[in-house]
Amino acid sequence: MGILGGVGWPSTIEYYRLVCEASLAYHRGREFSGPTPMPEIVIESLDMNFTINNRGTSEPGSWDVWDAYFHRALRRLEASGAELIVIASVTPHARLKEISHGIGVPVLSVYEAIGRQCAAQGIEKLLVLGTLPTMTSPAFRAGMAPFGVDAVAPSRQALKDDVAGIIGKLYRNEVEGAAEAIERVVRAAVPEQELAGLAVCLGCTELPLAFPEHNGEPDFLANGIRYLNSSVMHATAAFQACVDTP
Amino acid sequence: MGILGGVGWPSTIEYYRLVCEASLAYHRGREFSGPTPMPEIVIESLDMNFTINNRGTSEPGSWDVWDAYFHRALRRLEASGAELIVIASVTPHARLKEISHGIGVPVLSVYEAIGRQCAAQGIEKLLVLGTLPTMTSPAFRAGMAPFGVDAVAPSRQALKDDVAGIIGKLYRNEVEGAAEAIERVVRAAVPEQELAGLAVCLGCTELPLAFPEHNGEPDFLANGIRYLNSSVMHATAAFQACVDTP
Repeated sequence: MGILGGVGWPSTIEYYRLVCEASLAYHRGREFSGPTPMPEIVIESLDMNFTINNRGTSEPGSWDVWDAYFHRALRRLEASGAELIVIASVTPHARLKEISHGIGVPVLSVYEAIGRQCAAQGIEKLLVLGTLPTMTSPAFRAGMAPFGVDAVAPSRQALKDDVAGIIGKLYRNEVEGAAEAIERVVRAAVPEQELAGLAVCLGCTELPLAFPEHNGEPDFLANGIRYLNSSVMHATAAFQACVDTP
Repeated sequence: MGILGGVGWPSTIEYYRLVCEASLAYHRGREFSGPTPMPEIVIESLDMNFTINNRGTSEPGSWDVWDAYFHRALRRLEASGAELIVIASVTPHARLKEISHGIGVPVLSVYEAIGRQCAAQGIEKLLVLGTLPTMTSPAFRAGMAPFGVDAVAPSRQALKDDVAGIIGKLYRNEVEGAAEAIERVVRAAVPEQELAGLAVCLGCTELPLAFPEHNGEPDFLANGIRYLNSSVMHATAAFQACVDTP
């Protein structure tokens, strides 16, 4: 398995750990000799400073440097023998097509991992919380559509900014009050009567840190709101794909 | 930077985290725009089940499969552009010469990282605690000699077995009583009057888990005993080598 990471590095640890723990869970009760077998994994950890400072705009060609940086890392993962790649961050998926062009092995999209889970569990409406690019780009919405899932971000800019602020605090490990702040955003974005028919996608690696008691759960309830953890869904789908690969 | 890991995977997380945190510390107070710059890192995470099941004996050629498995991973790290490699585990260093033969970039030995620190701090005698191969192979002792450090493991087999037992418990996250158990081994292995002139090398990634209050410290005192954390010394030396590379 190949993991494209470093953006940021704590998410990369989270994905790697989730894949290894998925292997522990898979092998529980199975017979083997020695320590629990693990997939061979290659990780490319990029420099987030470079990626942030080379983000494009709406100008044609402005993403060329950024795209090439990610594309070369995917190429290296492929050259190292990765048969399946995951990108350990939701945000770069908005340019998945551009960066994975010509890569000869599957790059398992986070949209696909979430979409499959939603379809399997009958979830048809998703409120997406994540970084500003994740909430504003049409990519998440388009990625969910094939699975019959209507994905929307909070429509008001003030709420989007609140989410970005919560992510910033969680990145600095300020967990106190974060779950309540997320709940306030959800209740402000969704009318009370629609809440039961919807799940909230924690669409970046920091947001689940607000719910330490649900660490590692793909899908959980807190204060009557249903949350999906995109990292857990993505990483465990990647492990499952390894197992399914002949 | 290249990291050869997976043996086991929790140590790999520890090394990766230590390198990233070393970069955070290095950049504190320096000017840059955007998130803290990080070295680009490539990690090869091997399957510890394969390595354990393919360990050799004293028979000639019996390590060939094991050596080749590690050597190919080092080759892949080199091919991915690593300019410096660390192996995120002490045990494989006993065969560093065999596995790194023909690799065109430096593989920063854990012995060298510890030896330099000891030399810089005037430590001339080291009690090495680690896995059984680490404590029984002459490699650790030989690796310390060029730095004027006399490295010895507990001589009695019963004490070596105690250390292996403590590591096994820590691997299963059973931290309770581990610091006291380590101290008992140290006091049983070293006469009281020699204790002040010696440092204890926690020479595997699990052992420092017994001292959570000294997490991340390369060198610390607990109950009058001086401990060195080999992972912290090795990972921070690797980061420093990146900074020093022109």
